[in-house]
Amino acid sequence: MTEQNLRALLGPKTSDTAAGRIVRALSERGPLTAADIARMTGLARSTVSTALVDLRLSGLVRDADVGDDAESKAVGRPGTVITLNPEAGTCVGVHLALDEIRAVIADVSHSFIAEQNIALPKDYSPTVAANILKGWIETTYAENGLRLSGLLGIGVSVSAPVSPDGTVNRSSIVPTWAGVNVSEVFGKAFNTLVLVDNESNCSAIAEWMWGGAVGEPDFVLFKVDLGVGGAVVSNGKLMRGVAGGSGEFGHISLDPDGELCRCGNRGCLELMANLQRPLRILSAAHGREFTVEDAVDLANSGDAGAMRLIADLADVAGRGLAIVCSILNPPLVLVSGALARTGNVFLEPLLSSYERHAHLKTRDLPPERKTRFVFGTLLKNDVVLGAVGMVLRHHGRAG
Amino acid sequence: MTEQNLRALLGPKTSDTAAGRIVRALSERGPLTAADIARMTGLARSTVSTALVDLRLSGLVRDADVGDDAESKAVGRPGTVITLNPEAGTCVGVHLALDEIRAVIADVSHSFIAEQNIALPKDYSPTVAANILKGWIETTYAENGLRLSGLLGIGVSVSAPVSPDGTVNRSSIVPTWAGVNVSEVFGKAFNTLVLVDNESNCSAIAEWMWGGAVGEPDFVLFKVDLGVGGAVVSNGKLMRGVAGGSGEFGHISLDPDGELCRCGNRGCLELMANLQRPLRILSAAHGREFTVEDAVDLANSGDAGAMRLIADLADVAGRGLAIVCSILNPPLVLVSGALARTGNVFLEPLLSSYERHAHLKTRDLPPERKTRFVFGTLLKNDVVLGAVGMVLRHHGRAG
Repeated sequence: MTEQNLRALLGPKTSDTAAGRIVRALSERGPLTAADIARMTGLARSTVSTALVDLRLSGLVRDADVGDDAESKAVGRPGTVITLNPEAGTCVGVHLALDEIRAVIADVSHSFIAEQNIALPKDYSPTVAANILKGWIETTYAENGLRLSGLLGIGVSVSAPVSPDGTVNRSSIVPTWAGVNVSEVFGKAFNTLVLVDNESNCSAIAEWMWGGAVGEPDFVLFKVDLGVGGAVVSNGKLMRGVAGGSGEFGHISLDPDGELCRCGNRGCLELMANLQRPLRILSAAHGREFTVEDAVDLANSGDAGAMRLIADLADVAGRGLAIVCSILNPPLVLVSGALARTGNVFLEPLLSSYERHAHLKTRDLPPERKTRFVFGTLLKNDVVLGAVGMVLRHHGRAG
Repeated sequence: MTEQNLRALLGPKTSDTAAGRIVRALSERGPLTAADIARMTGLARSTVSTALVDLRLSGLVRDADVGDDAESKAVGRPGTVITLNPEAGTCVGVHLALDEIRAVIADVSHSFIAEQNIALPKDYSPTVAANILKGWIETTYAENGLRLSGLLGIGVSVSAPVSPDGTVNRSSIVPTWAGVNVSEVFGKAFNTLVLVDNESNCSAIAEWMWGGAVGEPDFVLFKVDLGVGGAVVSNGKLMRGVAGGSGEFGHISLDPDGELCRCGNRGCLELMANLQRPLRILSAAHGREFTVEDAVDLANSGDAGAMRLIADLADVAGRGLAIVCSILNPPLVLVSGALARTGNVFLEPLLSSYERHAHLKTRDLPPERKTRFVFGTLLKNDVVLGAVGMVLRHHGRAG
C-alpha cells in the first residue's frame, strides 16, 4: 500500500536511509530534479538514481505531470522533475481566525485540492473548531475521492504565541484559549499528527516554501496588517523561542508610558503601527465603513489621505524594524501583510524610517552586506498555506 | 611531524573523516571522554576507539595529565579523558582595546600558556598593533619553548561591528579603523589563519566554551559595562548578521528624539544604560575619580547611593532586554559585564524591569518555558579568551 510505504519512509526509523532522505526532501520542497535532490540531501547522484528506481517501482514517486504546477518549476532546469505520488498522502492546513476557520487540503506533491473559509461565532471553543473541521474534512475528502487513511497530518495556525508543545499562551486574540493545548484537542479529534504554531510563523513557512523567500536560510518576516507580527528564520530553521515567543515584533514596547496593549504592556509597536486606526479615520472621513481592502485600494489609486496614513504608520513601523535589525542584522527582510499590497506607498516611508533609526546604515555598507527587502508574494492566504506547509516540512526534516 | 598532522586533520579535506571529526571536537571542546566524543561527533563508539588508536600512535592525542585542568572536567565521568597533544599546536587571542592590546596564548589542549596587557597610545593603527603583537609573540614563544610553526591561528577581537570578511564597520570605538580589513592587516604580518569578530561575540564564545553557557545551543549574552553589548547564539551557531551587526543591543533606539549617540542614532539603549554616567556622579559625590571596579566594590559594600545608581541603570537595561526577548524568546540569558559582579544589586532591578516590559511574563509560564538568567563567569578576561576560543572553535567546526 502506497500510503503505508510513505508513512514508513517519513517516520523516524528510516530518516537516515537514502529513500527516507529523498522522500523527505520531496515532501519539504515539492517537485525536484534528481540533481536538486542530490544537492539537498547530500547523497551521491548514483545513490539518488538507484533509490529512485525502487521508489518509482513502489509507486511513491513519479515524474511530474506535464501541465501541473510542477511544470513551471521545471522551466530552465535540466532533467526530469520528480514528485511524490499525490495519491500517497494528503495534509490539511487550518488557520483559526477570530470568527472563522480557514482550511486547505494539499497532497504530498504540493498540489492544492480544496480550500474553504468556515464562518464561526467569535469566542468559539477549540473543541467546536475541531469538530466543525472534522465534518468539513470528511465531506471534502469524500467529494474529492480522497482516503482519510492518507491524511498525514494537520497543521494548525493560532493567532497567539504557541508553546512548542502546542499550548496557547496568553494574549491570544481569542482570550478564552489561553492555556489550551491545541495539539491535544485536535489530536483527540483526528488521531493523526497535529502541529501547531502562531500565524506569523506560518506566514514565514509559506513564504519560505512557495513565496518570496524560497530556500533562504536566514530571513526575517515583518508583517504589518491589522496587527504587527513577525518571524525569524536562522540557519535554515524557524526560531520558535523557549515558550513560542520569538518574532513578537508587534510587542516591542516603544513607550513604557504609552497606551495599554491587549498583551498587558504599554506603548507596543502594534498599537502605533497597525491598520485599525487608519481604517477608523478613513471610515469617518468618507462616511462609510472601510475594510483593509478598501484602504489598500484607495492608497493604490493615489489618494493623498490614504497614502499619508500609511506613510505615518510606516514611519513608526520603520523604528520597530530598525530595532529588530539591530538585534538580528538579517540578509533579507520579507515585508508581508496587507500593506505590502500597496508596494512603495508603504515600502518607501518604511525604509526611509528604517535607515534613519538603523544601527548599520544601508548607505555605509557594500552591496553584499546590505540587508535586502522584498515583499511577500502570498499575501492573501499565507497563513493557511503555512499551516499545511508545517506538515509537509515536518516530514521533510530529521527533527 | 605532529604539527603538520594536526594542520592536515583540522583542514577542510579531512573534515569528514573520523580522525578529522575527533580532532575538531577536541579542539572545540577541550579534553573529553571517548563517550563524549562519540556523542558530539555522531560516530559509533567503535569507530571512535579505532581512530583514537591511530591518533595516539601519531602523538596527536593523549590521555589528559592528572593534575591539569582536564582533571576537574573528568570528575564524575566514566572513562579516561583524552586531549589533543598540547605540543601539536598553539593559538593566540588578541583584544584590541581603546588604549591597550590584551593577548593570550593557549595550546590545543585548552591550557593557557601566557597572557599580557600591552599599553598603547589611543588611536593606534592596526599595523602598529600587528607589529607590536608580533614582537610579543616571538619573545613569548621563545621564552616558553614554543615553536612559531605551531601557531595555528590568531583570533582578534575589535570593539566594533565587524563584517564576516574582517572589515571594521563604522561606530568603532577607534574611529580611524572604520573600513579597515583587520584580517588582511594581521594576515600580512603573521602568515597564519586570522579570525576577527567584535568583542561581545568574543565574550559569548568564551562563556560558551568555558564559562556560564557551556554547551548551550541557544542563548543571548547581555553585557552591561562602560557600554552595552550583546550576542546571539542560535541552534549551536553564533549569529553574526549579514554585515556583522547582530547582537547590537546597545544601539536599540529607545527614544528617537533622545541624546545623540556615537553611532549616529539618538536615544540608544547604551546611552541610558552604561556605567559612565554613574561613575561621573560617584566621582563628584566622593571627590575622587571612580573606576568601574570602585563603583562595583562600593555597591557590593552596601552603599545606598551606588546601589541606587545601578538600580536606575538596570531599570532602563531591563526595557532593552525585554525588547531583545520579545524578538528572540531565548531559553537562557547570560548577564555579563562589570555589573554582573554586583550580583543581585544589578540582577534584581534588571529582572523586575524585564518582567514589567516583557511580552511573555515569567509569572505566566510553566518552569520549562521560562527564560533562565545566569551570570557570566569569565567577567574579567572574557573577550580575549573568546578571541583565542574563536580559533579553537573554527577548527572545531565544519564551516
